Amino acid sequence: MELLKETILKKGKVLSGDVLKVGSFLNNQIDVKLLSAMADDVFAHFKDKKVTKVLTVEASGIAFACFIAERFSCDAVFAKKSMTTNVDGETFCADCYSFTHKTANKLIVPKEYLSEKDVVLVADDFLANGQAVNALISIIKDAGAELCGVAIAIEKGFQCGGDALRNRGVDIYSLAVIDEMNAGGIKFRA
Amino acid sequence: MELLKETILKKGKVLSGDVLKVGSFLNNQIDVKLLSAMADDVFAHFKDKKVTKVLTVEASGIAFACFIAERFSCDAVFAKKSMTTNVDGETFCADCYSFTHKTANKLIVPKEYLSEKDVVLVADDFLANGQAVNALISIIKDAGAELCGVAIAIEKGFQCGGDALRNRGVDIYSLAVIDEMNAGGIKFRA
Repeated sequence: MELLKETILKKGKVLSGDVLKVGSFLNNQIDVKLLSAMADDVFAHFKDKKVTKVLTVEASGIAFACFIAERFSCDAVFAKKSMTTNVDGETFCADCYSFTHKTANKLIVPKEYLSEKDVVLVADDFLANGQAVNALISIIKDAGAELCGVAIAIEKGFQCGGDALRNRGVDIYSLAVIDEMNAGGIKFRA
Repeated sequence: MELLKETILKKGKVLSGDVLKVGSFLNNQIDVKLLSAMADDVFAHFKDKKVTKVLTVEASGIAFACFIAERFSCDAVFAKKSMTTNVDGETFCADCYSFTHKTANKLIVPKEYLSEKDVVLVADDFLANGQAVNALISIIKDAGAELCGVAIAIEKGFQCGGDALRNRGVDIYSLAVIDEMNAGGIKFRA
């Protein structure tokens, strides 16, 4: 998606450790007009799917997931990274290691929010090693729901997650795929 | 707002410790159609203000803040509860104790996302003791920005936060104010 790529080039910052900082427009501060255009683009790709839930991870995936869900007239669900006092009842659970934050998390979704009747579109702001997306797919499988695809804002194509999922036949739709990234610049996949 | 109150009565669950669980429609699982109507209602109240930023706290305030920001054609900003590897540079910081989760947090907003030119609308899903809203107001003050009001989905009116802020002259607009809540039912402020 050209507008997102232009914004990444203009406002993104490449930090050490393969971190792309997009805090000024995608998370931390959110350019809502851009996010709306991104959701339109995702909807155009998946519009023939009868999506009943958009599933993401707190916190930075929530806005993207909600804007996409609005276009499918369905609910958004986000996995939490810890049990909180207002999660009761049974949950689906999957392990997820964050290479960015160097933390091991469990992703948790209460069972009442996903069922075998659901057709689920996964959405997240980043896809790198694929830990979060794989954990969400595992939760969808545990729920007996159908995975119809994965919508990603920015895929780090130089890491293995996206292509490994494509090789398994998952419909990964990334609005921007970065093939090279360093202090000298960012190169997108054509 | 009638639709929100009806939904709280239908789907909310009163748990022990003054916790109102709204995971099935407001956080964890998000009824995007309801959220959109809530944002319309907030916009109608604050539409004469020249809002340049909607400020909230991760994670559960993000969706509400982004839908409101869309109506004001401005950006949303969320305070993080911890420093992460992709926050660099100077930050505004304020203490915030969560009575729900019984944790002490710092709310953190990078300085680059708030300035003295901003007119800020604070938005959050809950207002109870007012810890989070007070921390956000403190950050707005530190930034030299103007606070134009506070939009809340659900205010626990039986706790002190909202009325204390009103007494200080803050324009608190809560879509549903709960004056009593227990296993027997929920009573809204008229």
